[in-house]
Amino acid sequence: MDNRPILAITMGDAAGIGPEIIVKALARPQVQALCRPLVIGDVGIIEDHLRYWRGKESVGRPSIHATATPEEAEWRPEVINVLQPGPPLGRIEPGKLSPVAGRGAVSYVKAAVSLAKERRVQGIVTAPLNKEAMHRAGFHYPGHTELLAKEFGVARYSLVLTARGLFVFHVTTHVSLRQAIDLITKERVLDQIRLAHLLAVALGQASEVIAVAGLNPHAGEGGLFGTEERDIIRPAVAAALEEGIPVEGPLPADVVFPKAAAGRYRFVVAMYHDQGHAVFKSLFFNEGVNITVGLPVIRTSVDHGTAFDIAGKGVAREDSLVHAVELAARLGPKWKQIWHQVQSLV
Amino acid sequence: MDNRPILAITMGDAAGIGPEIIVKALARPQVQALCRPLVIGDVGIIEDHLRYWRGKESVGRPSIHATATPEEAEWRPEVINVLQPGPPLGRIEPGKLSPVAGRGAVSYVKAAVSLAKERRVQGIVTAPLNKEAMHRAGFHYPGHTELLAKEFGVARYSLVLTARGLFVFHVTTHVSLRQAIDLITKERVLDQIRLAHLLAVALGQASEVIAVAGLNPHAGEGGLFGTEERDIIRPAVAAALEEGIPVEGPLPADVVFPKAAAGRYRFVVAMYHDQGHAVFKSLFFNEGVNITVGLPVIRTSVDHGTAFDIAGKGVAREDSLVHAVELAARLGPKWKQIWHQVQSLV
Repeated sequence: MDNRPILAITMGDAAGIGPEIIVKALARPQVQALCRPLVIGDVGIIEDHLRYWRGKESVGRPSIHATATPEEAEWRPEVINVLQPGPPLGRIEPGKLSPVAGRGAVSYVKAAVSLAKERRVQGIVTAPLNKEAMHRAGFHYPGHTELLAKEFGVARYSLVLTARGLFVFHVTTHVSLRQAIDLITKERVLDQIRLAHLLAVALGQASEVIAVAGLNPHAGEGGLFGTEERDIIRPAVAAALEEGIPVEGPLPADVVFPKAAAGRYRFVVAMYHDQGHAVFKSLFFNEGVNITVGLPVIRTSVDHGTAFDIAGKGVAREDSLVHAVELAARLGPKWKQIWHQVQSLV
Repeated sequence: MDNRPILAITMGDAAGIGPEIIVKALARPQVQALCRPLVIGDVGIIEDHLRYWRGKESVGRPSIHATATPEEAEWRPEVINVLQPGPPLGRIEPGKLSPVAGRGAVSYVKAAVSLAKERRVQGIVTAPLNKEAMHRAGFHYPGHTELLAKEFGVARYSLVLTARGLFVFHVTTHVSLRQAIDLITKERVLDQIRLAHLLAVALGQASEVIAVAGLNPHAGEGGLFGTEERDIIRPAVAAALEEGIPVEGPLPADVVFPKAAAGRYRFVVAMYHDQGHAVFKSLFFNEGVNITVGLPVIRTSVDHGTAFDIAGKGVAREDSLVHAVELAARLGPKWKQIWHQVQSLV
């Protein structure tokens, strides 16, 4: 019996680098070892990109198997299984905004969600879509994640950034900094600590310390530069400790992130969007992976966009997608067990 | 005539790594090429650390010249000129908190300030002091910078972080995040842009673009996540452009810092302490240099502490001190010309 999870890998915008990095990623033996990858996309477009299958890392000469269902896929490393949910896109020019490609990208996500709801795939990995192309195609979602949330009927979700074994959680995200400060409560901080620990356990790292950032400079310097550490964050850390979670903090942002960068912490809870994002993206550029937590399946995505400027040139790097696939493969099979707990924390 | 500026290098806490990194730094030929270094510290302690003068990078076998004034110093690369402002400290145990060492550290800073006021040195470079040792010695300054500001009789100053050619400015620093948001005004943002440009000009990089970070996630996402970008930061950027300063922004923090990390920007204005510090220290750990701007001379300092845990072991790295000396040597001679402008901006 094949225990590797089946992952739906959505192709994203056909005019972007999605098809290229998918073909490159599937040529990697470690991707094949960890999962059964089902590309949800356009057969003709993937075929156009087969030249990016890299020989020296290859598991054989590739071929495409167009399949209508995961059950009919051919799980061999040299076969790229493509499930195309609608008519072919036809010719799409790389790097050029296309409503047709935008509509296609949305249809791949919808198809992946349907399969996930029916438990026919254990995770979703998304290649980048282009927001403007999606909007021009008549789909007015602010982004990829909102589209997924809508399709799953989920109202709450949170965003985890990860690269090289470091996971960054956020107590608040897409609100003004003033509003973010107002939204930081003991309960919300505690929930992100719990979520971090839950993922640590799922990854077999139960004893890993969860490091919690402060809000103010020097984590408030003993109340001199703000009281949120004393009144909100410290009590949340204390409550987490009482639940048996290994946790430290609040630590100054300019202490906890440098230590995390040096490998001292693997799980960090940030208080607001930029506190996590600015450091993370400075350290890892486009290497990172985003996890959307709050959906009934694991969803990971690359940390970069469609990169229209380099689309069609063969120079796109597949590293972020490879990491996204690896993570989905590791967490996917466990998601069913942790989903109800996750849902209560986001 | 010797055009190299004379720099006062204060020894800091004798129980910390200051004496060790000073001896190591002075053995570097590039330090000797750029300045005439005058150590303000304890002759006996520096003598104890002469064994760290590294042969292979050496400019000769070192000796110490105890001097009462800069004018009587012997400016030869193999001579360490030490000006000891008081009685010898006697035996100080490395890594052990000592009020005697704390008192000494304060006296070195005071002596350096006196020389700077009399224009007998062109810059001050400080090795780390230990706050607790200073407090136990009866000097209740919050830190090194406050001591310097007090001695110079200066009320306003600001902090610039620098490493590998990147300079980070801060519109606000040691206040709560809530208060920081309240303190961000068009005038304050504009002043930091002007200060950044002034230093760029002084460093011979007049055309270098000053990048300005936003306050809110996605720099406000067009007003959706906050209005400070529209109402405060953008007008400040526009005003700076009208003054002829090359400037861009407001840019999202998770865009501008990754670009700066990749070398795309060399001068970045951050809105609050952690926005600059967390990224900077994650990228550069202990390599960075702090510049205190607002004093009548340039003052640079290492970006690390006394490191009592490794003091006396010979493993301390002098890189940050070397960078601090290089920067003071480059900016010191120009400070007199820019000081009045600097003063009005901090």
